[in-house]
Amino acid sequence: MKISGIEAIPYAIPYRKPLRFASGEVATAEHVLVRVHTDGGIVGTADAPPRPFTYGETQVSVRSIVADHFGPQLVGLGILEREVVRSRLERTVGNPVAKAAVDMAIWDAIGQSLGVSVSELLGGFTDRMRVSHMVGFAPAEEMVAEAERIRDEHGISTFKVKVGRKPYRDDVEACRALRVALGPDVELYVDGNRGWTPSEAARALQEMRDLDLTFAEELCPADDVLGRRWLVQQSTIPMFADESVSRPGEVTRELLNGAATGISIKTSRTGFTTSQLVLGLCEGLGVEVVIGNQIDTQVGSLCAAAFGAAHPLTARRAGELSNYLDMTDDLLADPLTIQDGELAVRQGPGLGLVIDEDKLARYRQDR
Amino acid sequence: MKISGIEAIPYAIPYRKPLRFASGEVATAEHVLVRVHTDGGIVGTADAPPRPFTYGETQVSVRSIVADHFGPQLVGLGILEREVVRSRLERTVGNPVAKAAVDMAIWDAIGQSLGVSVSELLGGFTDRMRVSHMVGFAPAEEMVAEAERIRDEHGISTFKVKVGRKPYRDDVEACRALRVALGPDVELYVDGNRGWTPSEAARALQEMRDLDLTFAEELCPADDVLGRRWLVQQSTIPMFADESVSRPGEVTRELLNGAATGISIKTSRTGFTTSQLVLGLCEGLGVEVVIGNQIDTQVGSLCAAAFGAAHPLTARRAGELSNYLDMTDDLLADPLTIQDGELAVRQGPGLGLVIDEDKLARYRQDR
Repeated sequence: MKISGIEAIPYAIPYRKPLRFASGEVATAEHVLVRVHTDGGIVGTADAPPRPFTYGETQVSVRSIVADHFGPQLVGLGILEREVVRSRLERTVGNPVAKAAVDMAIWDAIGQSLGVSVSELLGGFTDRMRVSHMVGFAPAEEMVAEAERIRDEHGISTFKVKVGRKPYRDDVEACRALRVALGPDVELYVDGNRGWTPSEAARALQEMRDLDLTFAEELCPADDVLGRRWLVQQSTIPMFADESVSRPGEVTRELLNGAATGISIKTSRTGFTTSQLVLGLCEGLGVEVVIGNQIDTQVGSLCAAAFGAAHPLTARRAGELSNYLDMTDDLLADPLTIQDGELAVRQGPGLGLVIDEDKLARYRQDR
Repeated sequence: MKISGIEAIPYAIPYRKPLRFASGEVATAEHVLVRVHTDGGIVGTADAPPRPFTYGETQVSVRSIVADHFGPQLVGLGILEREVVRSRLERTVGNPVAKAAVDMAIWDAIGQSLGVSVSELLGGFTDRMRVSHMVGFAPAEEMVAEAERIRDEHGISTFKVKVGRKPYRDDVEACRALRVALGPDVELYVDGNRGWTPSEAARALQEMRDLDLTFAEELCPADDVLGRRWLVQQSTIPMFADESVSRPGEVTRELLNGAATGISIKTSRTGFTTSQLVLGLCEGLGVEVVIGNQIDTQVGSLCAAAFGAAHPLTARRAGELSNYLDMTDDLLADPLTIQDGELAVRQGPGLGLVIDEDKLARYRQDR
């Protein structure tokens, strides 16, 4: 079965409220739905969430690179020639989100053509993921109220708290309020989205030492090379790298430089193929991972869950799979549900995702 | 004087012959001319050469990010608020060529408004640059013929030889033929554009040990983290990093990782503002630099010369300023000339560049 064409459909769906974090704010999901068509009639689907302030991609650049560059380079290849696909995609530097969506859409087509779920093809370790919910910037009491609501409605007991504000004490206060309100059994970790200097991060970690944080993610910019190393040396909790590790070579550099001690894997960033490389690298080096969220739609979250559930190292820790709860609508015909803090992996051929064509027609921006 | 608008004009000019190197081939310059308009009527100009296989940018992405994202972020800023401009540009990750063109166009406007040449504003070290010419892939005898022609027509005596082919012995043979034909007084160095594995690179360097190469550039991919370190440890000539160092943090990482011992500075990649940061970093760390060429037009080469001539460390070594010779036409009203192996820096306010509006009208692709 050969790739016969690649579609890149820009669409926009508003969030219920703007999501705020140190590297930016999003009010509307302006994404690109990628569809890989085959000569056998099977269509693989995935979602590309462009993040200019994280990877430099925009909706325009993703659409153009997928439709105008990757499409012509991949048409005619068999869907199982995944490593040929990867070689061709990798000739183009950067553009991680665009590449990831193409890769995952091809996996979806492979799964459909073989009649197997992608999660089983990837490893088939388990059929569900525990879910971690992200709490964005707001006054401390609102952050507590949101976490309590999410806990009560969805049974979620792991929270990623966005930090990186100035003054950092606003974040310390929010984390303390969350720990007090949610009690000792809830898991809390923090994500700075590069908002702090190393010295601010060191002070904040010091002041939060009694809050039993599980780990801290990307507190300072990746290019604070020596600052990050200094921070890791003194930190008593693991320091996870996220947006600084958009490809395996960057994972290697951050870990060998002593600038990180854990790795966030995002399928929206490295697809399935390269995420498996990153996972192999981390498992081989003895480094913990977390399944991260690129402010994904239900389509993206479903992909992340399929990958996370496929391997023991990714399934061990709660994955960030609930950002879609903040969207006013989504494209899946059969919506995801998080129950008892868990998201079940879609069974059935491929990724098991069916797009609601009426919704796509309503939200797409190219017609 | 405030920025009142930023124009991004896509245009295409064919090369005389396709340029071939390990990371790709270009037959037509599909660039974006960037014009920064001010409320004082002054217009600053620079050129953006997108390189999908080097930085992931395309003509579409550069045009969109400059016009749709950077423009709205910068309009209203004073042209001297360069560090505010840089902060805003840096919020968007990647897109180095787009950012560089905006930065250089603003410097052009600053120079014009102050009645001073940009090269003097940058440092004013000297008024000319020795020129190094790039010899692309071809059979060895054609590469020799091209180098001899360039030497005879322009007095150039420094050549950058593209290598990275498989088998690597084709490149060894070409370098040997060039050394034999051009004699011992000509300076030769090689650029692999990431085409070799570390083991191929090691063997090639071994076999070229008697050819008196000055240095070698980017023989293996940046993500061959340990392979590059191993290569540097055994190499008897400096190993320059080029496309692997698109921002200061990457320069730091490559140097501290022992993966490079010299740095190529390209104004088309880091503009003037960030190129000065890279230069300061290299001077502080005691590392040599070379002014590189992003297959620049005359507009781009003029910018590179203005920067290179401004500082002793960049002016010390011949800069790569002659790629424009391969273009069938250009946009400068008053063309550059290379005489006795040197390119004079444009005097007069700003960058001293005047666009031939008839030519721009002929080559632009947006009308």
